[in-house]
Amino acid sequence: MTATADATTTDTSTAVDRDTVRDILDKALAEGRESLTAPEGRRVCTAYGIPTPGEGLATGADDAVRIAEELGGPVVLKIVSPDILHKTEAGGVKVGVRGAEEVRAAFGEILANARAYDADAAIDGVQVQQMLTGGQEVIVGAVTDPTFGKVVAFGLGGVLVEVLKDVTFRMAPVDPAQARAMLDDIAAAEILHGVRGGDAVDAEALADVVSRLSLLVTDFPQIREFDLNPVFARPDGAWAADVRILLDNGERHEPVRYTQEEILATMTRLMRPRAVAVIGASAEDGKIGNSVMRNLINGGYAGEIFPVNPKADEILGKKAYRSVGDIPGEVDVAVFAVPARFVVDAVAEVGRKGIPAAVLIPSGFAETGEVELQEKLVATAQEHGVRLLGPNIYGYYSTHEDLCATFCTPYDVRGGVALTSQSGGIGMAILGFARTTGMGVSAIVGLGNKADIDEDDLLTFFESDPNTTCVAMHLEDLKDGRSFVDTAQRVTRKKPVVVLKAGRTAMGARAASSHTGALAGDDKVYDDILRQAGVVRAPGLNDMLEYARGLPVLPTPKGENVVIITGAGGSGVLLSDACVLNGLDLMDIPADLDEAFRAFIPPFGAAGNPIDITGGEPPSTYEATIRLGLEDPRIHALILGYWHTIVTPPMVFAELTSRVVAEARAKGIDKPVVASLAGDTEVERASEHLYRNGIVAYPYTTEMPVAVLGAKYRWARAAGLL
Amino acid sequence: MTATADATTTDTSTAVDRDTVRDILDKALAEGRESLTAPEGRRVCTAYGIPTPGEGLATGADDAVRIAEELGGPVVLKIVSPDILHKTEAGGVKVGVRGAEEVRAAFGEILANARAYDADAAIDGVQVQQMLTGGQEVIVGAVTDPTFGKVVAFGLGGVLVEVLKDVTFRMAPVDPAQARAMLDDIAAAEILHGVRGGDAVDAEALADVVSRLSLLVTDFPQIREFDLNPVFARPDGAWAADVRILLDNGERHEPVRYTQEEILATMTRLMRPRAVAVIGASAEDGKIGNSVMRNLINGGYAGEIFPVNPKADEILGKKAYRSVGDIPGEVDVAVFAVPARFVVDAVAEVGRKGIPAAVLIPSGFAETGEVELQEKLVATAQEHGVRLLGPNIYGYYSTHEDLCATFCTPYDVRGGVALTSQSGGIGMAILGFARTTGMGVSAIVGLGNKADIDEDDLLTFFESDPNTTCVAMHLEDLKDGRSFVDTAQRVTRKKPVVVLKAGRTAMGARAASSHTGALAGDDKVYDDILRQAGVVRAPGLNDMLEYARGLPVLPTPKGENVVIITGAGGSGVLLSDACVLNGLDLMDIPADLDEAFRAFIPPFGAAGNPIDITGGEPPSTYEATIRLGLEDPRIHALILGYWHTIVTPPMVFAELTSRVVAEARAKGIDKPVVASLAGDTEVERASEHLYRNGIVAYPYTTEMPVAVLGAKYRWARAAGLL
Repeated sequence: MTATADATTTDTSTAVDRDTVRDILDKALAEGRESLTAPEGRRVCTAYGIPTPGEGLATGADDAVRIAEELGGPVVLKIVSPDILHKTEAGGVKVGVRGAEEVRAAFGEILANARAYDADAAIDGVQVQQMLTGGQEVIVGAVTDPTFGKVVAFGLGGVLVEVLKDVTFRMAPVDPAQARAMLDDIAAAEILHGVRGGDAVDAEALADVVSRLSLLVTDFPQIREFDLNPVFARPDGAWAADVRILLDNGERHEPVRYTQEEILATMTRLMRPRAVAVIGASAEDGKIGNSVMRNLINGGYAGEIFPVNPKADEILGKKAYRSVGDIPGEVDVAVFAVPARFVVDAVAEVGRKGIPAAVLIPSGFAETGEVELQEKLVATAQEHGVRLLGPNIYGYYSTHEDLCATFCTPYDVRGGVALTSQSGGIGMAILGFARTTGMGVSAIVGLGNKADIDEDDLLTFFESDPNTTCVAMHLEDLKDGRSFVDTAQRVTRKKPVVVLKAGRTAMGARAASSHTGALAGDDKVYDDILRQAGVVRAPGLNDMLEYARGLPVLPTPKGENVVIITGAGGSGVLLSDACVLNGLDLMDIPADLDEAFRAFIPPFGAAGNPIDITGGEPPSTYEATIRLGLEDPRIHALILGYWHTIVTPPMVFAELTSRVVAEARAKGIDKPVVASLAGDTEVERASEHLYRNGIVAYPYTTEMPVAVLGAKYRWARAAGLL
Repeated sequence: MTATADATTTDTSTAVDRDTVRDILDKALAEGRESLTAPEGRRVCTAYGIPTPGEGLATGADDAVRIAEELGGPVVLKIVSPDILHKTEAGGVKVGVRGAEEVRAAFGEILANARAYDADAAIDGVQVQQMLTGGQEVIVGAVTDPTFGKVVAFGLGGVLVEVLKDVTFRMAPVDPAQARAMLDDIAAAEILHGVRGGDAVDAEALADVVSRLSLLVTDFPQIREFDLNPVFARPDGAWAADVRILLDNGERHEPVRYTQEEILATMTRLMRPRAVAVIGASAEDGKIGNSVMRNLINGGYAGEIFPVNPKADEILGKKAYRSVGDIPGEVDVAVFAVPARFVVDAVAEVGRKGIPAAVLIPSGFAETGEVELQEKLVATAQEHGVRLLGPNIYGYYSTHEDLCATFCTPYDVRGGVALTSQSGGIGMAILGFARTTGMGVSAIVGLGNKADIDEDDLLTFFESDPNTTCVAMHLEDLKDGRSFVDTAQRVTRKKPVVVLKAGRTAMGARAASSHTGALAGDDKVYDDILRQAGVVRAPGLNDMLEYARGLPVLPTPKGENVVIITGAGGSGVLLSDACVLNGLDLMDIPADLDEAFRAFIPPFGAAGNPIDITGGEPPSTYEATIRLGLEDPRIHALILGYWHTIVTPPMVFAELTSRVVAEARAKGIDKPVVASLAGDTEVERASEHLYRNGIVAYPYTTEMPVAVLGAKYRWARAAGLL
C-alpha cells in the first residue's frame, strides 16, 4: 500500500514485468480472493505497460487531499475494498472533485456510503485518481470462453453501447496489428476517427492496450475476467481509468492434441483406405450392417472389404471373419454396425489388430445419456491407439475412392467440396441436396458425438487432399476452439471453409461478473472468432449448401470491381441491393468503358453500373456486353440479370453465356460470373446449363447468386488474395 | 424581441396556437429567409405546447447577466443570427456558464467568434438558456419526404447515435399512442427505460413532443425540416433545448386522387371485364397483338373479345373492327398492342367509346426518355376519363376470370394471392415461380411506368375481391406514399400485404440541412413507414415469392406460442435459430404438457422446446406428438423438423402429417403448421405433398418454413389479431 501519487504511466514500450503480476495474483489467490483491488489492478496494468491515470491510495482525508494536490486538476475518488465489487452502486465513487474542501467531503461521504452498503466490508482506503476528461470512453476486456479460452474484447464504453452490445472479440493474444483491426470492427468505429469536427483517437495507443491486455491474460490463465472500463481514448494516448480483475483457481482440462503428422497419417488412412472391415456386417436386409456392406460394394469401392460376424462364413459374396483379429493383412478402417454395448470391447480388438480408425455408426452413448460408456470408449480407444469417428453417425463418404461407408444411399458425383455435419439430419439434407443439384463432392462425413475426431482433424486432411477445393461444415459446438482456429487459419489461406454454426440462441448462459463477460454472448464470440479464423459463416442451412455447391465452381476474383449486366432494370435494382447486403463493390465505371458498353446498348438503356441493356435485346447484345465485361481487365466479377423474352429465350442466353465464358477461359481470363434468371419455367433448365458450365445461376432469386459471389469474396479477402 | 426570461414551459396540455406560428412563418418567408432564428423556433414550439427551457434573448452583456440570474443555475449561451445555421461550428455556443463573470465573458467571446466566422452576419443577439442536465438526450425531428410528405423522426441524441443511425420514422401526424410506440422502435430503446439503476424517462411527455411536432409540420407544409436536437428526456418531463426550423416556399404537386368508389368501380371493370378490346390485334405470329389474342382465347376467357385492326376483317376467328368506336355494346378494357406513337390518339378514342380502362403494353414512354409523350398520354386519358395500366408492361392476369391479357404465356392455377410488379422481369419471375410451384393465384398485374393506376388502386380492388386472400407487390417507388399507406393500413387489417421494396442502395441522395434530414435515408424511411402501414416487407425476391405462396395456405395463428417438434436434434437447433431471427416466441412448455409429450418419446429424447422425438422413431411417434401439438389449445403454431429414416420414410411422414392436420381441421382446430424436411431427394415429393395439404414444407432448408410462418405472424400482429 502506497500513499504516494504515481506519475501517469504513458510509456507503452515498457517491457512486461511478469514477476510483479505473479506475486500479486499468488497473494490474492492465497488469501482466497476471487478479485483484485483497484490498486492491485493498477499495478498489474503498469507491469504490462497499460497506461493508467496518476493516482494514490488514501487511508485518511488528509492523505486524500495531499494526493489530490500532487496530481493536480480534478480527481476521482473510489472506495477500495475487496468486498465491494460494484463501487458505483455502493455510492463509493465521486467524480470531478476539486480542491481540498471537496476532496475531504467526498472522502468522508464515500466511507459512510460504503459502511451503509456493507457494514462488514473490509475497507483498504479510498483511491484518489487523476480525472481524465475528453476523448472517447471505450471498454477493453478479456474473458475465459469455454470454447476459445482467453478472449479479448473491445467496444465503446457507456450505457448506450452496453445496450447496443457493439463489441468485438478475438482469441487472445492479438498482436498490435490485429488489435488495430478490432478498432474498426465495431459498428460505431467512425466515432474513433473523429466525427463532427472531433479529433481522432490515438488508435496505435489504444490498440497497444488491447494487445497488452491480451498478452497479460494469456500469460496468466488464473485471470478469469478482466475489465478496463472505461479506457479514455484521446488523441494523445489511451488510459485505463478503471480496472477490474477476477480470478479463478480452477484447473482447466487440456484436450488431447496430436501433431499435424499424426493427424494426417490417420486421416489419410480413414479417407483413402485400402481395406475396410465391417464389424457387425450382416446378410439380413434392413440391418445397418447389411446396408453398410451393400453401399460399400454397390458404391464401387475398389479396396478390400472384410465383413466381421462371428455367425457367418460369407456375407454378400465376401468371406466373413469371426473377429477383426482373424483378418489377414492390414486394415485401415473398421466400420461399426453393432449395438453400443459391444463397441468398447470391439474397439480394443480393433486396436490390437493395428487398425487406426474406427467409424462408429451406433448410437446409445452420450447423446442418450450414456456419458460413462462414451468416456470408457474414448479411454479404450486412446489406450489402443485407435482414432474414433462418431459415435452416433450415418457414416461417411469418400467420393474419389468410391467409398460409401454408411447406412444411407450411395453418392457418386465427384467434385471439390468436402462436407461434414455434427447432426445426422443435416447430413441427410446434404445428401439430398447434393443429389438433386448434382453437386460435386469429395467427402461427406458424419461427426455425431465427436468423442474423438472432430473438425480440426478433418480440416487437416482436406487441406492436403488435392480433390478437395472447398470445405463446408455444420457444427453446433467446437470441442477445442483454439485448435480449430489454428487449423482453420492455416487451411483458409488455401481453400474456402464454410461453417454453419447452429445455436445462436444459446447465449448469455454463462454467469458473468464483469462488463466484458456480460457482453460476451456465445454467438457473438463465435461469430467474431470464426471470422478471425478466415471462415465464411453461412447464415443458414440452405446458404451453406449453396455456398458449398457454388464456391468450388467460381474462380477466385482478382479484385473488387463487380459489374452487373442486366436485361431487366427491375432485376438490376434488386441485384444492386444484394451487392450492398453482401459487401460487394459495384465498380465505378470509367468513362471509356462506359462508352464501350454504350456502343452495344440502345440509347435509352443505362450504362453506369448496373448496365441495363434493356429487355427487348437480341442475343448479340447480351453476348457483346458479357464479352466486354470479361475482357476488360479492370472488371473482376460479373453479375448477370437475364429477362426471358422471345427475342432471347432462356436456353439461347444460357448457351451464349456459357460459350462466351468458355472462350474467355480459353484465353486465360477466368473471372467469377453469376446469374439471376427471371422468366417462365424454362429458366430452370437454363440455370442448370449455366451452372454446369461454371456460371453460378439461379431462377427466381436475385439474392442467391450474389450471396454465393459474396461468400467467395469474403473468403478471398480473408485469405489475403485481394 | 424580448429581453425577459420566460418561465420554462411544461404544460403539455396547452391548446395549439396556429395564428402565432403562421405569423412567424409568414414574416420569415416574406423576408426571403429559409430558416427561423432560435427565438422564433422557440415561440413556434411554445405555440404547439412543446416544452422548451427557460430563456431570453440578450442584446448586450448586462442583459445576458440579468437573464441568467433570473433563470438561476448554469446557462447555455448561443448566438442568434439568421446567417449562422451551424452555431457550434461558428464558436457560437457556450455551455455550463455560471455566474455573472462567466456569463459576461461568454457573451463577448460568442460575439467575437461569430464575427470572425462571418463578418457580414446579421446578429440578433445571444440566447441565454437555462441549462438542462441529466436525463437522456434525444432527437425529435421532421422532414419532407418526396414519397411520404411530412415524416416525423425519433432517435437518441449524440454523436454515437448519429453514427449508428438508430432512428425511427413515421408519416406525420402521429397521435400520442403511435408516438409512444416509436420510442420502443429504436435499437437502444432500453436506455429510455432506465439502465444501470438510471431512472426511466417520462415517456408520455416525450411522446407528446413527438406527436405535437408531427401535428405542427402537418399544419404548416412550408416547414421543410425541423430539428429538436437535443430534447432532454428526463423522469420529470421532456424539453427541447435546441430548435432548428427550415422553410420552403415551394409549391407541391398534389397527385390526382379518386374516391374509393370511383377506384373500385373502374378496377372491378378492369379485373372482371365482360368485354375486352385488343387494339392492334394481329393474325401474324410473333406480333404482340397476336400473342395477346391467343392468350385471351386459349386462356379460356368467357367474355367477349373484340380485335381492333383497320386492316383485318377477322382475327383468330373473331370479327375485327376498324376502330374501337365501331364495336357494338359496352367494352370494359382496351388492351393496347400498338406502337407508342399511336397510343395517345387511340386512348382518346377509347375514352370516346366509354371504355374505362386501358392496358398499355407498349414501351417507348418515360422509360426510354419520352417523358413528354407520357405526359400527353396521361393528360389525354384524364380528359377522356380513361384509367391507364402501364405503359411498358407485360399485361395482366385475372385468374378467376380465365383472363390472360398479356403477351406472356397463360397461367390458370387459381388461388388466393394477387401479385403485382413494377418491373417486367420480376413479373416473369413471378410467372415462372408460380408455374413451377403450382402457386394458386388470383391476379398477376404489371404496373410498369405507373403513369396512372398504381398499387393503391389495385389494393383497393384486392381488398374487396373475395378471391384474393393475400397481396404481394414488387415496387421500386411509390407515386403517392401517403395514399398507399392509407390504403394499405385499411387493407392489411383484412389481408396480408407483402411488399418487396427494391432500391435500398438509393439512399442519402437528397440534400439535407438538418440532422433529421441527414438521418433520413430513403430505405430507412420506407422500411419504417411500410411497417406503419402494416405491410410485411420481404427481404428479397425469393422471399416475396415464398411468402406469396405460403401466406394464403397458412391459417392465422391465434396466439404467440410456437412449438418445434423434430426428429433431428440438429434441425431443432437450426429451427430455433430461425425462430429467434424471425421474431417467433418458442413457447415455454408447462409441466403437464411436457409430461404429455414425454409419454410419446424415448427417455433420452428431449421434451422442452424444441421437442426432440429422436431420429429412429416410427410414424406413430410423429403422429402422436403432432396430434398433441394440434389439440392442446395452449399451442398456437407448429414447426416440424423431419429426418429421413427407413423407419419413417418421407412420404409416410408427409401422409401422416397431412392426415393428422386434416383431422384436426375437421374438428375446427386450424393452426399454422410448417415443416423442414432433411433427407434424400424423396423429401422433395414429400414437401410438395405437405404443401398441397396446407402444410408449408420445404426440403434442405430450416430457414424458409420459419420465415414464412414469421411473415404470417408479422402480419397478424400488425392487423391486431394477436
